[in-house]
Amino acid sequence: MKASQYAGNKKFTIVEGERVAPGAGEVCLKVGYTGICGTDMHIYHGVMDKRVSIPQTTGHEVSGVVDEVGEGVTDYKPGERVVVRPLDYCGECPACDAGHSHICHNLKFMGIDTPGSFQNYWTVKARTLHRLPENVSLQQGALVEPLSVACHDVARARLKTGEKAVVLGGGPIGQLVAAVAKGIGAEVMVSELNPARLKFSEELGFETVNPKEEDIEEKVKAWTNGKGADVVFEVSGVQAAVETMTQIASVRGRICMVAIHAEKPLVNLFHFFWKELELVGARVYEAEDFDQAIDMISSGKIDIDRFITSVSPLDEIDEAFANIDANPEGMKSLINCGGVQ
Amino acid sequence: MKASQYAGNKKFTIVEGERVAPGAGEVCLKVGYTGICGTDMHIYHGVMDKRVSIPQTTGHEVSGVVDEVGEGVTDYKPGERVVVRPLDYCGECPACDAGHSHICHNLKFMGIDTPGSFQNYWTVKARTLHRLPENVSLQQGALVEPLSVACHDVARARLKTGEKAVVLGGGPIGQLVAAVAKGIGAEVMVSELNPARLKFSEELGFETVNPKEEDIEEKVKAWTNGKGADVVFEVSGVQAAVETMTQIASVRGRICMVAIHAEKPLVNLFHFFWKELELVGARVYEAEDFDQAIDMISSGKIDIDRFITSVSPLDEIDEAFANIDANPEGMKSLINCGGVQ
Repeated sequence: MKASQYAGNKKFTIVEGERVAPGAGEVCLKVGYTGICGTDMHIYHGVMDKRVSIPQTTGHEVSGVVDEVGEGVTDYKPGERVVVRPLDYCGECPACDAGHSHICHNLKFMGIDTPGSFQNYWTVKARTLHRLPENVSLQQGALVEPLSVACHDVARARLKTGEKAVVLGGGPIGQLVAAVAKGIGAEVMVSELNPARLKFSEELGFETVNPKEEDIEEKVKAWTNGKGADVVFEVSGVQAAVETMTQIASVRGRICMVAIHAEKPLVNLFHFFWKELELVGARVYEAEDFDQAIDMISSGKIDIDRFITSVSPLDEIDEAFANIDANPEGMKSLINCGGVQ
Repeated sequence: MKASQYAGNKKFTIVEGERVAPGAGEVCLKVGYTGICGTDMHIYHGVMDKRVSIPQTTGHEVSGVVDEVGEGVTDYKPGERVVVRPLDYCGECPACDAGHSHICHNLKFMGIDTPGSFQNYWTVKARTLHRLPENVSLQQGALVEPLSVACHDVARARLKTGEKAVVLGGGPIGQLVAAVAKGIGAEVMVSELNPARLKFSEELGFETVNPKEEDIEEKVKAWTNGKGADVVFEVSGVQAAVETMTQIASVRGRICMVAIHAEKPLVNLFHFFWKELELVGARVYEAEDFDQAIDMISSGKIDIDRFITSVSPLDEIDEAFANIDANPEGMKSLINCGGVQ
C-alpha cells in the first residue's frame, strides 16, 4: 500500500507503507479522503518538528470505509463508511476523571503525535469512529472533523437561537463557526481583512465587516441596537482582535477563544470586570460535537460542499500543500488517499 | 443633622446637612454604620475627582434604621433595621432589559455618583433595601455590602461544595471571598505577600501560600493531586497574579476576575485554549447576593466580627481614612454615622 511521509522541510515522500492489521478493539480503514488542516500546514512548515517524529505519516481530517475489525469489535463491520475522532486519551488523569478526556493531560493527537491518515489504510481504535449516514459522501465526511471543531466552539459559547455572534477571522475554522452559528439560528457577522474571504462570507449569507475600512465597534453597536454582541468568537490569533473582542461584547457577553495565541497579548481585563464578560476556551471536540457535525451535513443545515476548494490524489500531496501556501484564500483542500476505489 | 463631605485632597469636612424627606417610593434612614471601602479610599486619594462632585457625601457600605417612608412604600415601616444595595439602574437599557440591572449601562453607584451615607440620615429608594434579622447587629450589617461582593464572586465562579479554590490577594475582599467559599463547603487557599494578612487567613482556617517564598504552581499541584484549582479568584490586580491564574487553574477551571485592572496585562490566552479555561468577570452584586450575605452572617457560617478592625465616630472620619493609609493591613474600618443612638 502507498503512504505519504512528512520528511521535514516542506517535503513529503511517497513510500510503500505497511497495512497494520487491527488488534483487539481496533479497526483497519480503507482511507477515503483526508483534509489538510492548519496544523498540517504548521507541520509542513517545520514549526512542529520537535513534536512530530520524522519521517511520519500525518493527516487527521479523515473519512474511510471499514476494511477489517479486530477482536472484540462488534459495533462496526467491513464496508461501513465512517469518520475518525482523532483523539487518544489516557483515561487515568484528572481531566479524564472529570469527564474531559478530549483535553486529557496526556492526550495523543492522532496524525500529529502518532501516525495519521495520508495513506491508503489507517488502523485506529474503534472508539474513535463515527458512522456516516448514506446521504453524506466520503468527501463531505472529510470535513466532519473541522466542522466538529466549530460545533464545539458554538457549544462552549452557549450560543442560542436568535442571539447575535461576531466571528473575528474568516479562515476555514472561522467560516465553519459562522456556518454552525447560522445553522442553529443565530445571526452572524464575520470580521475579516481579506476581500476574497469577505466575499465567501457574503455568499454564505453572513453579515461582514472589514475592520481596516469600518469602525467595527460602531458597526456592531448599530447591528445590535446598542447592546453589543451576545457572543464573540476569536479565531484570528492577533492582538488587534483581542482589543476588539472585549469592546464589541455585550454586558454578560461570552467570548470564545478558538485561536491559538502563541504570544501573550494584552487583554482588557477591566472590560471583563465592568461588563461581567466571560472568556471560554475551546479546544478540539467531544463525541457529541462529531454527532452534531454529521447531522448538520446530513440534514442540509450546512452546505459543506462550498468549503471544498480542491481534491488532489495522494501522489500529489506535495503540490497540494504548496498550493495552499500559494493560495491562502482557499478553504479546504482534500487529498484522495486512494484506499477507496 | 451632621453630614461629612469629601472636600478633595484627602480632606473631609463635617457640615450641617439637610435631612431629605422621602419622596414616593423612597425611605429615609437613620444611618447606623458605614464601612470604608477601597473605592472610598480611591475617592479620598483624589483619583476619582472627575467622577465625584466635590464637595460630596460619600459612603455606601451601610446599615441603618427606617426613619420615615414615602408615598407608596408598604414593605417597610419606621424602626425596621435594614441595609442598602447601593445601585440605581435605569431600567431601560439593553443590560436592564436582559435582567442584568446591577451592571446597567447607565448605572449610578450610590455614594459615588450620587450622595452617600457618611451622614446621620440617608434617603434612598425602597427597592434598594434588605431587612436585617434580629441576630445581626448594625455593625455587622455594615459588612453586608462587601460580603455581597464576595457572594457574587463565588456565584459567578459557580464554585461548588468540595471544590478547591485559590484566592489571589488577601485584602478585605479576597478574605471575604475565601470566607464565603469556605462557608459553602469549598476548600480554600489564599495567596498573599503580606505576613499579617497571611496570618489572618490562617486564623480563619484557610490554606495559605506566599508566592514570593514558595512555588505556588507546585504547591497548588500538590494540594490538588495534580489536577489544579477548580476555581481561581483574581483579587490582586497585578501582572504576576495574571500569570499565576492561568497556570494553577485545572483543565476546565474557572477564573473569576474580581480585581480592577486599570492597565491591560499580558494574558496567557494559550492556556485558555489548551485547558479550556473560563474567565468570568464579576462586578458588584444582585439582590440574591445580599440575601445570601445576610443569611451567612445570621446563620454563623461566617464570623464577620473578625473583619471589623475599628469603629470611629463620624467626627473622626478624617483620622479613620488616614489610619487606613497608615495601616493597610487592617480589614474593615467602620464609621458610626450617628443616626442611631
